[in-house]
Amino acid sequence: MTPRHVEHVELSGHILDSLLLPKVLDAVVTRGATYEVQEFRVGRTQGDASYARLEIRADSAEQLDAVLTEILSHGAAPVHPADCAAVGADLDGAFPDGFYCSTNFRTQVRLGGEWVDVAGQEMDCGVVLDPPRCVPMVGVKRGDRVVVGRAGIRVLPEEAAAKRHELFEFMTSAVSSEKPKGVSTREIAHAIRRTRAAGEQVLAVLGPAVVHTGGAALVAGMVREGFINVLFAGNALATHDIEQALYGTSLGVSLEKGIPTAEGHEHHLRTINTVRRHGSIRAAVEAGTLTSGIMYECVKGNVPFVLAGSIRDDGPLPDVVTDSLAAQDAMRALLPGVGFCLMVATTLHSIAVGNLLPAWVKVACVDISPATVTKLMDRGSTQTVGIVSDAEPFLRALDAELRHG
Amino acid sequence: MTPRHVEHVELSGHILDSLLLPKVLDAVVTRGATYEVQEFRVGRTQGDASYARLEIRADSAEQLDAVLTEILSHGAAPVHPADCAAVGADLDGAFPDGFYCSTNFRTQVRLGGEWVDVAGQEMDCGVVLDPPRCVPMVGVKRGDRVVVGRAGIRVLPEEAAAKRHELFEFMTSAVSSEKPKGVSTREIAHAIRRTRAAGEQVLAVLGPAVVHTGGAALVAGMVREGFINVLFAGNALATHDIEQALYGTSLGVSLEKGIPTAEGHEHHLRTINTVRRHGSIRAAVEAGTLTSGIMYECVKGNVPFVLAGSIRDDGPLPDVVTDSLAAQDAMRALLPGVGFCLMVATTLHSIAVGNLLPAWVKVACVDISPATVTKLMDRGSTQTVGIVSDAEPFLRALDAELRHG
Amino acid sequence: MTPRHVEHVELSGHILDSLLLPKVLDAVVTRGATYEVQEFRVGRTQGDASYARLEIRADSAEQLDAVLTEILSHGAAPVHPADCAAVGADLDGAFPDGFYCSTNFRTQVRLGGEWVDVAGQEMDCGVVLDPPRCVPMVGVKRGDRVVVGRAGIRVLPEEAAAKRHELFEFMTSAVSSEKPKGVSTREIAHAIRRTRAAGEQVLAVLGPAVVHTGGAALVAGMVREGFINVLFAGNALATHDIEQALYGTSLGVSLEKGIPTAEGHEHHLRTINTVRRHGSIRAAVEAGTLTSGIMYECVKGNVPFVLAGSIRDDGPLPDVVTDSLAAQDAMRALLPGVGFCLMVATTLHSIAVGNLLPAWVKVACVDISPATVTKLMDRGSTQTVGIVSDAEPFLRALDAELRHG
Amino acid sequence: MTPRHVEHVELSGHILDSLLLPKVLDAVVTRGATYEVQEFRVGRTQGDASYARLEIRADSAEQLDAVLTEILSHGAAPVHPADCAAVGADLDGAFPDGFYCSTNFRTQVRLGGEWVDVAGQEMDCGVVLDPPRCVPMVGVKRGDRVVVGRAGIRVLPEEAAAKRHELFEFMTSAVSSEKPKGVSTREIAHAIRRTRAAGEQVLAVLGPAVVHTGGAALVAGMVREGFINVLFAGNALATHDIEQALYGTSLGVSLEKGIPTAEGHEHHLRTINTVRRHGSIRAAVEAGTLTSGIMYECVKGNVPFVLAGSIRDDGPLPDVVTDSLAAQDAMRALLPGVGFCLMVATTLHSIAVGNLLPAWVKVACVDISPATVTKLMDRGSTQTVGIVSDAEPFLRALDAELRHG
Repeated sequence: MTPRHVEHVELSGHILDSLLLPKVLDAVVTRGATYEVQEFRVGRTQGDASYARLEIRADSAEQLDAVLTEILSHGAAPVHPADCAAVGADLDGAFPDGFYCSTNFRTQVRLGGEWVDVAGQEMDCGVVLDPPRCVPMVGVKRGDRVVVGRAGIRVLPEEAAAKRHELFEFMTSAVSSEKPKGVSTREIAHAIRRTRAAGEQVLAVLGPAVVHTGGAALVAGMVREGFINVLFAGNALATHDIEQALYGTSLGVSLEKGIPTAEGHEHHLRTINTVRRHGSIRAAVEAGTLTSGIMYECVKGNVPFVLAGSIRDDGPLPDVVTDSLAAQDAMRALLPGVGFCLMVATTLHSIAVGNLLPAWVKVACVDISPATVTKLMDRGSTQTVGIVSDAEPFLRALDAELRHG
Repeated sequence: MTPRHVEHVELSGHILDSLLLPKVLDAVVTRGATYEVQEFRVGRTQGDASYARLEIRADSAEQLDAVLTEILSHGAAPVHPADCAAVGADLDGAFPDGFYCSTNFRTQVRLGGEWVDVAGQEMDCGVVLDPPRCVPMVGVKRGDRVVVGRAGIRVLPEEAAAKRHELFEFMTSAVSSEKPKGVSTREIAHAIRRTRAAGEQVLAVLGPAVVHTGGAALVAGMVREGFINVLFAGNALATHDIEQALYGTSLGVSLEKGIPTAEGHEHHLRTINTVRRHGSIRAAVEAGTLTSGIMYECVKGNVPFVLAGSIRDDGPLPDVVTDSLAAQDAMRALLPGVGFCLMVATTLHSIAVGNLLPAWVKVACVDISPATVTKLMDRGSTQTVGIVSDAEPFLRALDAELRHG
Repeated sequence: MTPRHVEHVELSGHILDSLLLPKVLDAVVTRGATYEVQEFRVGRTQGDASYARLEIRADSAEQLDAVLTEILSHGAAPVHPADCAAVGADLDGAFPDGFYCSTNFRTQVRLGGEWVDVAGQEMDCGVVLDPPRCVPMVGVKRGDRVVVGRAGIRVLPEEAAAKRHELFEFMTSAVSSEKPKGVSTREIAHAIRRTRAAGEQVLAVLGPAVVHTGGAALVAGMVREGFINVLFAGNALATHDIEQALYGTSLGVSLEKGIPTAEGHEHHLRTINTVRRHGSIRAAVEAGTLTSGIMYECVKGNVPFVLAGSIRDDGPLPDVVTDSLAAQDAMRALLPGVGFCLMVATTLHSIAVGNLLPAWVKVACVDISPATVTKLMDRGSTQTVGIVSDAEPFLRALDAELRHG
Repeated sequence: MTPRHVEHVELSGHILDSLLLPKVLDAVVTRGATYEVQEFRVGRTQGDASYARLEIRADSAEQLDAVLTEILSHGAAPVHPADCAAVGADLDGAFPDGFYCSTNFRTQVRLGGEWVDVAGQEMDCGVVLDPPRCVPMVGVKRGDRVVVGRAGIRVLPEEAAAKRHELFEFMTSAVSSEKPKGVSTREIAHAIRRTRAAGEQVLAVLGPAVVHTGGAALVAGMVREGFINVLFAGNALATHDIEQALYGTSLGVSLEKGIPTAEGHEHHLRTINTVRRHGSIRAAVEAGTLTSGIMYECVKGNVPFVLAGSIRDDGPLPDVVTDSLAAQDAMRALLPGVGFCLMVATTLHSIAVGNLLPAWVKVACVDISPATVTKLMDRGSTQTVGIVSDAEPFLRALDAELRHG
């Protein structure tokens, strides 16, 4: 009988129906450790919280540490917490070894015996103190006090139970093209209205298929009516939208006639060149060159947007932020106040924004390929509901719900 | 210098812009033979036919035969034709060796120096004489005179050039979810109207996602209004349609609320059982049990339908033709008079029907997966235009076009 | 305060880590009922069973019934059970109204106070007594005693906890093309060996892409070596396999050269015709016409196979069971003794076989499209692990594992 | 009879079997213009060139211009050419209106009556004179002489006929998961050897699934053996590769055991942090921290690489070029000398590189989703052959071909 490596942890809340306790038990066993339930009080009814205290036993310090790190993100915290530990960064743009790596769940650090909220919650960051906040790797400065280890950290995962009675209650994580869409669309319209009523903002993350499939006017209307308050997209969405406004085509294909028009494949490039000659999208609007579409409505309605650059961009438009780190920062700056996020037809931007959003901002991700939603959820954006649909039909249905709903 | 195996063939018509001549030249070279263009008269304008006479030279009789067989289906015929050859079938349900294998293009056989049309054109059949007609392998009877070889056979492929000025002129074979759908949908509505105006019938081939996605009422309306005149489907489409009529669910999922209802997964089976207790769908309608939906409208409007069985069927409904050969024959019996075919959300039935249709019946194939359309075209149903879309949004748009168009 | 509709149920076993209890609580709340946990004993360690007794309260008898029906399949049974009820079938081929609808989990019925196992467990059937067995709808005979309602029925769902320590322990239900395949393949090889060692049989369910992608020789070797003991497929798999043996092509494409060969598209049909002329695949083997491939090895090794017909079949081969109900029965007859099922590249046959298999026969489903696996699991075949891979590379890797493993 | 707008154009070469003439005729008719074939000399055999002179008649100058612009890219040039026209750029970073928009086909401009090759051929650029060269929009400087209109420009499209007898002769543009892969893989191995033998370089463009699926060691070997000479990828590929070298995991999933390891999801970030602490990948190699994998072999073998940034990047690694325009320029700088390009499992980078490559650099694009290849070809990279396959099995087969071939 070798002495065992042991820790006592506790969980409370809707740990049964939110699956937190089963996940914790699974994590322990999967990693080769064992548990003993030392106390368990089950919530008598669905309104009541449950409580569990577990003893975790491992064969080595490494194994114990691995288990504790894993279950921390499911809400299991040591029964006897210590303050968190921090060391000073020795370099700009890199963390000290052993840095604590953040999730997108609400997190607290223990300082002087008090639990303090971490600001700017974002996954895959470090936590820097004074005051506690999430900081991406490139943002750390030499001398910053960076939290290391997992002591004195408490993660408060979203509770599925709570979620069930609210938004998206009916939706499961399963993504399938065989599910009825009408209800999902109605619920998204409802979420958009509620977000607006709560004084929060609706963020739209859009790919170019929104325009290709004929949905630009619908989105433009939603911007104009105040249903979309922040826009994240890439060069392609904006260019196709402006191309449609200037030429009536998208990537040279006439949306009216469906045939590639003469010189059509050039419209894309001529559109970008025209805007570059103006200096910015706003300048093109003010000069009277651009008079309709999504970008036009953003300019007219002062809806802020970030157009993030990509290596496959033509041009790009003068408004595009070609540096990816600068683009991430520009997006971060617009996230406070966002209460709901609608992603349509873009894998790249959906994952990028999913990386930045805290877990409590609900996300609806619409794509004709189920793989996009699966990827988003695999990467930790578990607050996402997926709808497998083509862009335009979804937008048409959403528009109808928003108008008459 | 070995003596060469040589044949002279000719093509005429829109052989340039329909790509028939390039295909013939490609087939010759790919198979290792060579050609010499002995005469070429190009149509001066797009209204004029062209003509080409080629000498094909091969290294062996086998190679020459392979080339000639291949180019026969692109419309190249020997300059000096012979009558076709036929031998008597020695068995029921199997052809003699060397049988001519049909395409879905209009075909003629030469008998007594005259070119005679083959009836019941269908791909992958044999041609039986007295009179000349396509017969599937299982349909041949001992003693039938079956055409063998490729002598005395003339294939008249559809000309892309002609097609270009008619239906679907704007559509290319490329299948992409990034194309605008509005125009395609309008053109399909136009084709349906034209088919009806010509006194021909519109055949719908439907998969269960038509119901899952909420499109049953739309299709029911099209049946009622006479826009769909023949229906081919499987047990699943009919069961989900009737389940929705009886329980308001599809596979147990409420189309209204979007949540799986209690006992929902059983509705499917109880639906089938209920109809089986009545004896047939028509009996369920006449008893007042079934009062709405696609199958109801088919019964009320005497729209003929074939429900073809499959090994994944539950039940099945009493109307399902569980023998696949009997189901194929039931479908064949309803094809004469069909002028247009709309396939929605079914790979299995789409390919089955594509196998039966002659190449001059235009097909629109709607599926959320581009692979379905690709498979259909790979299997020779080249008259198909594909639309990548979810079922319900497409049907909603088509319904609007049919109503207001 | 209206009087409530109340029932007391209990669950025991690994109800926490197998997620059964959370699923039960979720089902109660989702359907609008409420629960009170009246007794809860948690297993102290992962080896120990847990126990829960719940009071379920509903607003109506219908609601209560809906909840109880749902949670029955998660293993919750009334605390005070009654005997099951049965009524005589009044018709051939249809159940009485209110029939109990089976799952694919191990099930018992209570007769004379004793719990008796149901034989031939299969989802979506009824349970007929004397002795208790699953019977599909078409199989019921007038006068059969059919179980109705949910009284006296106990479902014993597979416990995820148990599963975790055995086969497929590492795999989650998530299906993704981004997962490493090496481990999955090794584990499937391990499962095949273990099945064989246990004296059970390995069932392979194969689609034609097995041949298209070049995997026929690999499968033929597995049949020869005794790694595949039963084969379910369709006309296409067998025809392409035999076509490759006779002509070296699959659907007319040379697997050696990759180019469509002359007359290639006809090889398919000529292959079927040749076998039809022999009368059966076995006769073609015995005549020395067929000398290699999957079907050849099945004949030589007396490996039983079912070739189920489909409406998209050409021909078909004389061995094909063209009636879908007869094909289902032929498959059912070969299932006893099957301990593991490998499905490769076929959606239709995978779902068909998934419908027939009890939940304790583990299934590995390999397909290049994640949608196939998702569909299988959505239809209740939750014992399935999915591998997103092309057929041939998977088979090559599996073959290597089986040989050298 | 209104006076018509008329131009005379000619084409020569393998205009029949390369489909150039049919495409030209189609373009004329589709745009509503008409043609008259004024001279046509057909190549007698497949070795001979053909020649066509056409009169194009349009209803308006705009229509004529549209047709001529379109057919220019199919190799049709005016019978009586003029010199090209150029105007000075009035701005940095934007072209004058009416700039000629380049294709990826070999192009010449007429200067002083002489046809001069355009250097640095790349699609969607302008042509700047002194000397003639393709310049992207952001690269133009005020005062540069930019070609406008389409006079004096000659495009020399790749001839399918020529291509047919060389590399990839057997492959069609059709992308299907049902095609045999063995031959394709062998041909790619052949192309890589031939490229190397010709003293040209093989460019690999790789996505992270190369590592996820277990292919890193295979690629590392190809780099070491000199089969890959230039590498373009993103932060993810490099990070997962280095993560595997440091931790044995990819995105936290053990490639050996297939299970998510403890702290696994953090390995990704810790990997990046470690390399950032070193300052560069090369520094990590030189410090002995990184001792295996793709990036290690690139450093050891002085194989140049570009890691292009993206907005979904974590970190990123210090070597990542986060500005998309700088990344495009870094890639352009490495293209001269590249004779073959292999793209595996990356849509974003494949399209980005496809935008930069001239049409005569053959591309093999391997992806588990057919959509990636379709997108690449839709965007003009028509020299691409697509293979639908998972990354690792393809790489394993390619490795075997390269070793033993």
